[in-house]
Amino acid sequence: MATINPNFAKLPGNYLFADIARQVEEYAAAHPGDELIRLGIGDVTRPIAPAVTAAMHAAVDEMAQAASFHGYGPYEGYEFLRRAIQRYDYAARGVEIGLDEIFVSDGAKSDTANLGELFGSDNVVAVCDPVYPVYVDSNALAGRLGEYAGGTWERLVYVPCTADNGFVAEPPREHADMVYLCFPNNPTGVAATREQLAGWVAYARAHDAVIVYDSAYEAYISSGAPHSIFEIDGAAECAIECRSFSKTAGFTGTRLGYTVIPKALKRGGTSLNELWRRRAATKSNGVAYVVQRGGAAVYTPEGCEQTQATIAYYMNNARVIREGLQAAGLAVYGGVDAPYLWVAVPGAAPSWEFFRTLLHEAKVVTTPGVGFGPGGEGYIRLTAFGTAEATAEAVERIRAIL
Amino acid sequence: MATINPNFAKLPGNYLFADIARQVEEYAAAHPGDELIRLGIGDVTRPIAPAVTAAMHAAVDEMAQAASFHGYGPYEGYEFLRRAIQRYDYAARGVEIGLDEIFVSDGAKSDTANLGELFGSDNVVAVCDPVYPVYVDSNALAGRLGEYAGGTWERLVYVPCTADNGFVAEPPREHADMVYLCFPNNPTGVAATREQLAGWVAYARAHDAVIVYDSAYEAYISSGAPHSIFEIDGAAECAIECRSFSKTAGFTGTRLGYTVIPKALKRGGTSLNELWRRRAATKSNGVAYVVQRGGAAVYTPEGCEQTQATIAYYMNNARVIREGLQAAGLAVYGGVDAPYLWVAVPGAAPSWEFFRTLLHEAKVVTTPGVGFGPGGEGYIRLTAFGTAEATAEAVERIRAIL
Repeated sequence: MATINPNFAKLPGNYLFADIARQVEEYAAAHPGDELIRLGIGDVTRPIAPAVTAAMHAAVDEMAQAASFHGYGPYEGYEFLRRAIQRYDYAARGVEIGLDEIFVSDGAKSDTANLGELFGSDNVVAVCDPVYPVYVDSNALAGRLGEYAGGTWERLVYVPCTADNGFVAEPPREHADMVYLCFPNNPTGVAATREQLAGWVAYARAHDAVIVYDSAYEAYISSGAPHSIFEIDGAAECAIECRSFSKTAGFTGTRLGYTVIPKALKRGGTSLNELWRRRAATKSNGVAYVVQRGGAAVYTPEGCEQTQATIAYYMNNARVIREGLQAAGLAVYGGVDAPYLWVAVPGAAPSWEFFRTLLHEAKVVTTPGVGFGPGGEGYIRLTAFGTAEATAEAVERIRAIL
Repeated sequence: MATINPNFAKLPGNYLFADIARQVEEYAAAHPGDELIRLGIGDVTRPIAPAVTAAMHAAVDEMAQAASFHGYGPYEGYEFLRRAIQRYDYAARGVEIGLDEIFVSDGAKSDTANLGELFGSDNVVAVCDPVYPVYVDSNALAGRLGEYAGGTWERLVYVPCTADNGFVAEPPREHADMVYLCFPNNPTGVAATREQLAGWVAYARAHDAVIVYDSAYEAYISSGAPHSIFEIDGAAECAIECRSFSKTAGFTGTRLGYTVIPKALKRGGTSLNELWRRRAATKSNGVAYVVQRGGAAVYTPEGCEQTQATIAYYMNNARVIREGLQAAGLAVYGGVDAPYLWVAVPGAAPSWEFFRTLLHEAKVVTTPGVGFGPGGEGYIRLTAFGTAEATAEAVERIRAIL
C-alpha cells in the first residue's frame, strides 16, 4: 500500500493564515452587517504601479504574436530581470552578486519552504521565536523537527526574540546547522543592525551552518539597517537570501521573488548554487514571462518612484497605528523598518483571546502572536497594508474597546 | 555542519532538457551560420489565442486600480477557473469532479514533481520506460529509488513500453505503491485505450497503489481514447490527475496547470486531498491572478475555437513528420493523439549518436530517446510544435541525410 509522509500527521492544526481566514469567514457569515477591517494577513491593497502594469501589457502583446512569443524561459529566470536585480538590489549597495547566483521564483514563501530540499534530514534547525510559520512547517514536513508536543517541536532550536532583547536575539548557545532569519522581521517588524547580523554570520561560520535569510521587507527599511545579509563580510560562504516583490511592488497576487545563492557557499565540497539550479530544472519551469517583465519594470525610474510612493503610503499607516495605539497606552513595536506592528496584549491575556475580542468587538482582523510560535504569546500583529482610511478607523475602533 | 541531501549526488548528470540545451548552445556558438530547426524540447511556437490575451489585458487593468486589485488568491486557485475546469474538462465528458477536488498550480511539471512529498520514502515507484524524466528524478531526490547503476535505479520498477506492446504496457507483475502514467504519452506519442487504463486502475486497486496520471496532452487526442483517468470506474479511489495549459493553450512561458485529487482517495485513512491542500497553504501562495484569468478564457467559445485551431496546426505538423519519415523508410510512432513522434533510429545506432548526426548534418534538434530511460534507446523524439515551414524543412533535411 502507498504510505503517507508521516510528518504531515505531526503538524499541529492548519496553516496559520488559512486557519485565521476560516475563523474570519465564519464570523463574517454569522454577522453579515459588520464591516470588518482586515489588518491580519499581510496582504497589500494598493494597485500595481502604472509603469509595471504598462510593462505587463506590453509583455501580453508580445505573447499574442508569433514573432515575439515566449515559450519556456530559463529555469533561473530571464537575464533582463536578473541583471536589474544584480544592479539595483545589490551593486547599488556595494554588494557584488553574480548573474548566475540569482534564481527568479514565484515568491519568497515557496523558496524558503523549498530550500530545505537541498539539505539532509539530520540537520538541526534554528529559528527565531516568534517566527514566520513557513520555515517551521516546511522543516517539520521534511522530518527535521521530531515530534510536536506542548506547543514546541522537540528538535527545533527556538531563539527567543523578546521585548528585552528588542526582538533581535543573539545567536544561541546550542549548535544548529540551518538557521532561518527574517529581517526586517515578520512578525515583530524590527530590523537587525549590522553588528547583530555580523554576530549571526560569525555563528554560522563557527558552526558551518547555513543561514536562510528572508529579506522580503527590506524595501521598508528607513533606518540605516542592512538590506542584505551579503552586506556582512563572510556571508557569501554561509548564507542564502530570499527576496520578494509581494510587499515591495504589490505582487502578492502576481507572484514573483528570487533567491541568491553565492557560488562560494559549499558544504561537504558541494555547491548549493549547483544543487538549487538542478532542483529548479528538475521540478519547475520558471515564472511567467509577463510577470518577469512586470518585475523588471519595478527597477525603472518610473517604477521605482511609483512603488516608493506606495511604500511611503503604507509606512504612514504604520505611523498612524503605532502612534495611535501608543497614545492609548499599549506597548507597540516595529512599524519603522517594516510594515508590521507588534503589539503587547493588554492585561497579559492570551493572544487568541485578544484576537477574538478585536474581531468581535472592534471588528478588526489581526493575527494572534502565538500563531508565530510560543514566543509570540501575549502579542498580536497588525499590518500597515490597509487603506489609510480603514487603518485610521481600525485604530479608533481598537482604542474604543480598550 | 549543514549536511546536503545525499540524493542529489545520486542523480546521473543533468536534467535531460537542460543537458540538451547546453549541447545545442555549444553547437550553435561554434556554427553561427547554421540555421537550426528545434524539434527537441516540447516547446510551442504559436502565439497565445486572442481571447486569452484579451482576458490577460483586462486582468492587468484590474490590478492597476485599487477597487479591482487582487492580492493573495486562494491557495487552491480562483473559483472562476476551477468552475470552468470542472464544467468543460470533466462534466462535459461525464466525469463528476468536486470544486474542492481541483487545485490550480503553475504547471504539471511542478505538480508531478511535488506530489511525491505526500508519500512516505519507503514506497515502491513504478514508471513506464521510456518516461518523462521528472517523475524519476523527483523520486530519486526523495530517496525512493536507491542507487543509480548501469543506467537504471535499483528500487525503481521499470515497465517497458516497446513497439511490441504498442508502447502501452500492461501493469507489471511486481508490486508498486506509486505508479506514474502519462497518456497521451510523452515521449512515445501514444494514447492508452479505455481497456488499457482499466487494467492499470485494477492493478492500483489490487495493490492499494496510487496512480499519478499526467494527461498534459489530452487536448491532442483524436482517437476515442479517454481524456481523463477518471473516465475509468474506480479511479477516484486510486488516482491523481495532473493537467497543463502549456500545450493546450501555448502556456509554456505563462505557467498554468492543475491537479485533481478526489476526496475518495485515501491511504491509511488519510485523505490525500487534505494533505495536498495543507501543502499548498504551507509552501505556496498560488498562481498569478492575471494568468488564471487567461486560463479561464481558454474555456470561452472564442478561446476554445482559437486554441483548437492551434492544436490542429500542430497536428498537421505531426502528420507531415509522420508521413514524411515513414515514406523515407523510418518506423514512426505517435503523432495521432499527441504532438510527439517517436522514431526508431535507423541501423540500430545509439540514440545520442543519431541525435548528434541530426544536429550536425541535418541541423535539426531532436531528443535522444535514451534520455527518457533505458527503454528509449534506439529512438529519438520529434515534436510537432515547430512552425509548419520549419517542420516541412526539417523532414526534408532528415530525409536528405538518411
